Amino acid sequence: MRVGVLGTGMVGVALATRLVDVGHDVVMGSRTPDNEKAMAWAASQPERAAAGTFADAASHGEVVVNATAGIASLAALTAAGEDNLAGKVLVDVANPIASYGPPIALEPVAGDSLAEQIQHAFPAARVVKTLNTMNCDVMVRPSTLPGEHDVFMAGNDAAAKGTVRSLLEEFGWPRTSVRDVGDVTAARGLEMYLVLWIALRMTLGHNAINIRVVT
Amino acid sequence: MRVGVLGTGMVGVALATRLVDVGHDVVMGSRTPDNEKAMAWAASQPERAAAGTFADAASHGEVVVNATAGIASLAALTAAGEDNLAGKVLVDVANPIASYGPPIALEPVAGDSLAEQIQHAFPAARVVKTLNTMNCDVMVRPSTLPGEHDVFMAGNDAAAKGTVRSLLEEFGWPRTSVRDVGDVTAARGLEMYLVLWIALRMTLGHNAINIRVVT
Repeated sequence: MRVGVLGTGMVGVALATRLVDVGHDVVMGSRTPDNEKAMAWAASQPERAAAGTFADAASHGEVVVNATAGIASLAALTAAGEDNLAGKVLVDVANPIASYGPPIALEPVAGDSLAEQIQHAFPAARVVKTLNTMNCDVMVRPSTLPGEHDVFMAGNDAAAKGTVRSLLEEFGWPRTSVRDVGDVTAARGLEMYLVLWIALRMTLGHNAINIRVVT
Repeated sequence: MRVGVLGTGMVGVALATRLVDVGHDVVMGSRTPDNEKAMAWAASQPERAAAGTFADAASHGEVVVNATAGIASLAALTAAGEDNLAGKVLVDVANPIASYGPPIALEPVAGDSLAEQIQHAFPAARVVKTLNTMNCDVMVRPSTLPGEHDVFMAGNDAAAKGTVRSLLEEFGWPRTSVRDVGDVTAARGLEMYLVLWIALRMTLGHNAINIRVVT
């Protein structure tokens, strides 16, 4: 599948690398066509990898992954272009971090979410919030942690969630660990969970943390 | 130990009953001395149980449990009396639910928490936020759910957290499942997690839900 990954940070690199690894054809997008990190990433891949602008990446992708910083996401997606996002599965993994604190501050929060803002701004995109509840090493290789633990999805489009589920399974997530928590408003819970995750990271002293839903 | 439980709802009844069950001497407090639910609860217990006002319960307790509704908690604690809370371990299990929605709305949220508001209003109380991340059946009898799952604590006073840890162990929580996530500001994460918990409840269709931290 053709995937556009927006963002050249740790999360973007981890996702783009793993997507190539499992067989997809990836363009990493950034603000400029000659971003050093994006070009270095593309050069590091054996095949099926290129760098370009946000618009290049979005235009390329059947699936587009938002791995930009939360505060920059709407601007990055605007640069990617509404037409390039129309009808696409838009996988939003960003957290709306206004300040790392401590204590951490989210914006938007509570009565809104970044995923909802993106869905509102790009109504023809099929937004699925997922993977934002963990470190990027765990995102792309869940066996980084022992035993069973979960990844969540929230979005309005069932078919888009099906596509995301398939990608997550390719990353190694067992089907029973992929939990659909509802429509895009459920992204509020996924984003607000970050505040607990940060507290766990602070007290545990490392990033290799996820949760298992027990019922 | 003498424990005051503020609140006569499902959570207050579950906690008060279990506290009597494991050997403590409990007064359930409410706004009036003749609250029917509190008196019925006290009558239903074999021993070591009484009903009274918020002040009666707080005055009785070496440990005081806030199991009132979040929006009523500061008023209930004010009625309980600053002097009756001074030096006490104040176990805050309330969630600051402004609207059940859907989508659920918390108040305060993000830049504050109910636990912090309580600690600020009653600086001589030793507030520990805990148990608010699950249904009351799971709170008092963790074996309601299979396998390992966790309960969190946040608060400024290490000795108070030690007392709470002992109570949680009496309820059946294994020592390794009681996770101290930091000072009272970490209560933000515990309270904001409720939004994810509600989404899980909505999609799973029941209340028997908790999480296990996997590292």
